[in-house]
Formats: sequence, structure tokens, C-alpha cells
Amino acid sequence: MREIYFDHAATTPPDERVVEAMLPYLRGDFGNPSEPHRLGRRANRAVAAARAQTAAALGAEEDEIVFTGGGSEADSLAIVGHAETHAAGHLITSAVEHPAVAEAVRFLERYRGWEPIVVPVDRDGVVDLDAYTGAFRPDTRLVSVMLANNVVGTLQPIAELARIAHEHGAVFHTDAVQAVGSLEIDVRRLDVDLLSLSGHKLYGPKGVGALYVRRGIELVPVIHGGGQEHGLRSGTENVPSIVGLGKALELAVDALPTAGPRLEALRDRLIEGVLSSVPEVELLGHRRQRLPGNVCLSVRGVEGEALVLRLDELGISASSGSACSARSEGPGGVIVAMGRDKVSARGSLRLTLGRATDDADVDYFLEVFPGVVERLRAMSPLMAGA
Amino acid sequence: MREIYFDHAATTPPDERVVEAMLPYLRGDFGNPSEPHRLGRRANRAVAAARAQTAAALGAEEDEIVFTGGGSEADSLAIVGHAETHAAGHLITSAVEHPAVAEAVRFLERYRGWEPIVVPVDRDGVVDLDAYTGAFRPDTRLVSVMLANNVVGTLQPIAELARIAHEHGAVFHTDAVQAVGSLEIDVRRLDVDLLSLSGHKLYGPKGVGALYVRRGIELVPVIHGGGQEHGLRSGTENVPSIVGLGKALELAVDALPTAGPRLEALRDRLIEGVLSSVPEVELLGHRRQRLPGNVCLSVRGVEGEALVLRLDELGISASSGSACSARSEGPGGVIVAMGRDKVSARGSLRLTLGRATDDADVDYFLEVFPGVVERLRAMSPLMAGA
Repeated sequence: MREIYFDHAATTPPDERVVEAMLPYLRGDFGNPSEPHRLGRRANRAVAAARAQTAAALGAEEDEIVFTGGGSEADSLAIVGHAETHAAGHLITSAVEHPAVAEAVRFLERYRGWEPIVVPVDRDGVVDLDAYTGAFRPDTRLVSVMLANNVVGTLQPIAELARIAHEHGAVFHTDAVQAVGSLEIDVRRLDVDLLSLSGHKLYGPKGVGALYVRRGIELVPVIHGGGQEHGLRSGTENVPSIVGLGKALELAVDALPTAGPRLEALRDRLIEGVLSSVPEVELLGHRRQRLPGNVCLSVRGVEGEALVLRLDELGISASSGSACSARSEGPGGVIVAMGRDKVSARGSLRLTLGRATDDADVDYFLEVFPGVVERLRAMSPLMAGA
Repeated sequence: MREIYFDHAATTPPDERVVEAMLPYLRGDFGNPSEPHRLGRRANRAVAAARAQTAAALGAEEDEIVFTGGGSEADSLAIVGHAETHAAGHLITSAVEHPAVAEAVRFLERYRGWEPIVVPVDRDGVVDLDAYTGAFRPDTRLVSVMLANNVVGTLQPIAELARIAHEHGAVFHTDAVQAVGSLEIDVRRLDVDLLSLSGHKLYGPKGVGALYVRRGIELVPVIHGGGQEHGLRSGTENVPSIVGLGKALELAVDALPTAGPRLEALRDRLIEGVLSSVPEVELLGHRRQRLPGNVCLSVRGVEGEALVLRLDELGISASSGSACSARSEGPGGVIVAMGRDKVSARGSLRLTLGRATDDADVDYFLEVFPGVVERLRAMSPLMAGA
């Protein structure tokens, strides 16, 4: 059976060049970078080289990169870590954030007495600029708005949002976990203070991420200890995975000028093909301001979970939404926040394309998908009233 | 040149069987365990199998294991995470803790208004039982004492310390990062509530660890998000490294009955050989209640750093103390806490043996070490008054 992976937003296969770059550090070069002997020095140099690659990929300086144990940790370090430098205050976030941001904000509210305002989005998932601008207060210390949405792929106007935050004296964080590797990122042009990324979303390894911390932005660590990573993230450096992350970023940046347009063309063909062949399907998320590989559909009269399981039987790995949540609430929150009802949210299907996706994958999907929907709709109590 | 690795307390080379177990999850089986499709399910099963291996290695239940991004994170989750479930209170720790514990305690003191008491140790590095017992107050919520010291190798009487803590209604955490894999561990017999371990200290990968959390012990996460790991540690599971950790634990437990006595014999021969061939050298740490692979020496009239660099030139990787700290303070704190002066602390050399160590390594070290010390002492201003 043909196997098609349409779940790149959940995780990506590590590039073989990334795995090859990691292997020496899982074998002979296993030193601890804090040690002054030769094995330690070699490990230290490897981490420094990966830091240079990471900084270069973001337009940052090397001392502005903090390696973490993943994207969620980078978000917690940014949000909780910066909040700790203030007495409780006010913070602004959006209604479509990843749980790594939304739950960090809830933690500050519940355990630290912070007052969050959650700014609504429009039907395309774009932050409402008037509501955003009106949300600032004299004690607004921190803003966190994601760069690209993990469910519907919508991009936010981060440079503008950051500018407004700075006019109000607030620090601006963006969760760019879905964006880095898929879009050109320049932290200076975006004018952000804190930016999170994750290795396994960009053909690097799981269990490693990074936080860009603009010079002068203060943070209190959330993981304490020996003072690695400029004192902001203790623990022996995960040398193989850090090396893999640096390599993955370098490869992604190199590939972007051709990979981006190629993915967009595949994405658009998939969107047009589905919309023209299956009735009562809506594209969720902004039509143009979206991730190059994201197709998010609301299929009336069908459960997203049922679609995913049926597609899986046909060799197609897809998602009913965000795999970033192990909880039952799932991605429905994002779609409801965009003004759809819960039934639309439950009928959502996320297809996320990637490096290995080709025209034949799109053809195969377009060939089988109308039949899958038709069959599920015929069985569905949701269509009873239709 | 002969290459000898005497720095296993800093980090261990991953076992080749661990690397082989990881590779499929870095390549074809790259799924996100939260996804219901086949790749997701395969990843989910791999994490479940590693959780069973980890639980079995500790005598715990599978739902008591939380995978983390390393030992330091496990310590922060235990200490800060449990403290968050209380209003500020009183906690007890020892004077020889790893920075991952000591800094988490300092964070609670500085940012949360907790009152820590740091219990002293005797000249062997063992916690003073009278001082410990006398330190409890009605509002003592939490105790954290390490199982085995990372610098001098001394073991603490954890079962007894935990029993006393429970008599006072306090939760007991132990940092067992140096112990797991080197000693038989049974969380029920130790009667601990929380226990931290790290993959790369037991021939597993870096960047992964685990926290044992006894059923009923409450924690607030330090990394927020999608609710993975029973809601205690969010972020996509680091599948390859979790698989590697499970495999490394299984191998370590299997090997322990023969590996432990073998290492002890090598360790004791190294200790006796050095003490009988080099004058004015003291063994630091408890003579018998110590890690099987740990030799920690105080060499009068010599800087530990100079010893390490000279040994490195001779192909021997050793440590002047804990590589777990990227800070300049280093391991001196532990040695000073044991009643030695700062000069003794600065002359400390830690040799930590491991699986690949053999008699020839010990012979080579004993052959070159007297000359190394003699030459450095001849150059040393510290010996001027001798």
C-alpha cells in the first residue's frame, strides 16, 4: 500500500543528514561540554558550532540563543521565565495559541496572580488588531502571540504586533515552532524579544528546541542547576540533539527559497482539488497568509477522528488537529475561536505537507478522499438533518 | 597514545545497544505519540515499553514514571513542582547537593519565600543525623537529599532519612542521578516519594531523564502545554531518547550483579595504589559507603585543574570535580562542606571508572600519576611553605 505522510505539523522525519551529523556524538564524541579535557572540549565546540548555525538561521547573535529540551520548554521559559522578573502584572495573548503558551499563561494566572487578556481572532484566525491595541494597560508587561498557527496555518502580523507591544513598553514573545524552517525568519525584522522553536518540526530531532532571547531581556530559569546556557537552562547539554538542531536549521534555511514555493503549489493544488470535488467542505485559516504546507478543512457531517482513522487504513497519515496536545480538548478551541460552531470543529481535518510530499501523493489523496467522505457521511448521524 | 576515560560521573558513552535501539525512532518510526495514525501508535507503544522498563528498574509502577529532558529538569520538577502545591513553607536539604537541587532550593527561597535549612555533613560527606532530625519544623513540607554524591561518591542513608521525613509529614525527594545504574534501586525499599535519574549517567543518551513520582504525590508542572506525561511534563515525547533510556536502564540492571563488584575491585586497587605511591594524598568521601566507580582525591600542593590538564596530555580524561556545573565555583563547595579547607578543595581530583575500565587502565594510571604529581608539586607555589 502507498504510504503518505500528511502530518508534518505534528512532527517531521529527521533529515538523514541530521541523523548522520548526530551519530558521532552518540558514539565516540560523547563528552560533557563542561569538562576541560579533550572529549569535553570537542563536545563544547560542537555545541558552539550549532549555536552559530541557530543564530545565523534567525538573524540573531550567538549569545542570544538558549538551547532547551523542546518547543514547549522554550515557551515556558519565555513566558514564566520573564514573568518571574516582575511582580504580578498584566499580559496579552491570543485565542488561538498552542497549549504550550495557553497553559503557561494559565499557570501565571492561577499561581502568580497575573491577569491575562486573551485577544480574539477573526474568521481567518488573524488577531483582531483593534482588540489587541485596546488590550494594553499601563501594567502590561508581556505579550505572547504565535507566528503561525499549528492547526489552521494562519500567519500573524508579528512585526506589527511587536511594534505595538513595544510602544506600550511590553516585552514580546512569539511561539514560532510551526514557522521556523517553513518561513524566512529574521528576529530583527520581526522585532521580537523572545522567539521559540522546536527541532522536530523542522526535520531535526525531538527533545530539543531553542529560545531566542534578545540581549537585555531578563529571564529567570525554570530548570535550575549548573548554570549552562548562559545560566538560563541548566543540565548537561544534549550535544547530539543540539548538533542535529543546528544542522536541521542550516538545511532548512538553505532549502527554503525552492522548498517554500514548491510546497505552496502542492498545497494549493490539494486545496483546489478538494474544494472542487467534495461538497460542503470549507478551508479553515487564511487563504494566503498561511503556512506553505498547511491544508485545514472542515468537512460537514463527518467526525475528524473518523476521517483520520479511515485515511490511516488507506495509508495516509493525517490529523484531526493538533498532535501537540495529549488532552481530549484537541484543536477545537482554535476553530471555535475563529467563529465556527463545535460541529465544524469536530469535522476538522489537517493535512500538512512536507519535503517528501510530491504530486503523486496529492493525486492519490484527491483520488480517494471524495469516496471516504461520501462513505462516512452515509453512516453519519450528523448528516441526518441534512 | 593510550586513551583512558576516568570521567564517567560527568557523562558515560551511550551503550552501542542503546544507540541501535534509538536509531529506528530517529529514522522510519518518527511518529508523534499523540497522533492516532499508525506512525503515532508505533511511537506511543515505544514510549510505553520504555516506561515499563524504567518502572521495572526502580521497582515502581508505570504510572509513577515521568520522562523529562534530563536529570536537572527532574530535580526542578520534583522540588519546585511540589513546592507549588503549598503556600511557602520550610524545606530541608543537605550541604552537598548537586547544583540542580541547591539552585532549585535557592529559587524557592528567593522567589517564593520558602525557608530552607541546609543540614551539614561529616568529614566523610554523610548527612549529620542529629542535625537532620533537629531541623524539622511543623511546617516542613519537603526534604531533598541526594542518594550518591557526584563529587566524592558518598552514599546517604536514604531509607532512614525518608522514614524520619515521613514521621514529620514531609515529602521526600532524592536526586539519584549518580546512583541509578550503579547501585540497586528500589523506590519502595528506599521509601522515597520522588526520585530523579538521568539517561547519560547510565550509558543512555543525553537530554533525557525521569522522575519517579509516588502515587498520590502532587506536583505542578514546570513545563506547560499539551499535557503529556500524565499532565506533568508537556511537549512531544522525545521518543528515540526515551527508548534509549529504557534500554539503558534494562541493561544496567541486568549487568549490576557483576558490574558492581568488578568496579569496586578496580576502584579499590586504584585507591590503594595511589595512597601507597604518592605522599600527602587523601581519599575524600566515605571509604566504603561510596559509589563503586568513584575515586576522589585531595592532592596537597597541586591545583586540580592543572592535574586534569596534565592527565589529559597523557590521554587520561579526569575531572577536578563536578562537570555538572558550568560555573566557576565548581565542586569546592562539597569538599569545604566536609570540613576541608579551600586549598584541599582546589587540589581535588575525581577519577570515575566505568564499564570499559580495565586493569590495564588502572595500571597505566598508577604508573604515570606519581610523576605527574611530583612534577606539578615542583612547580607549585602552593608547596613553597612545605
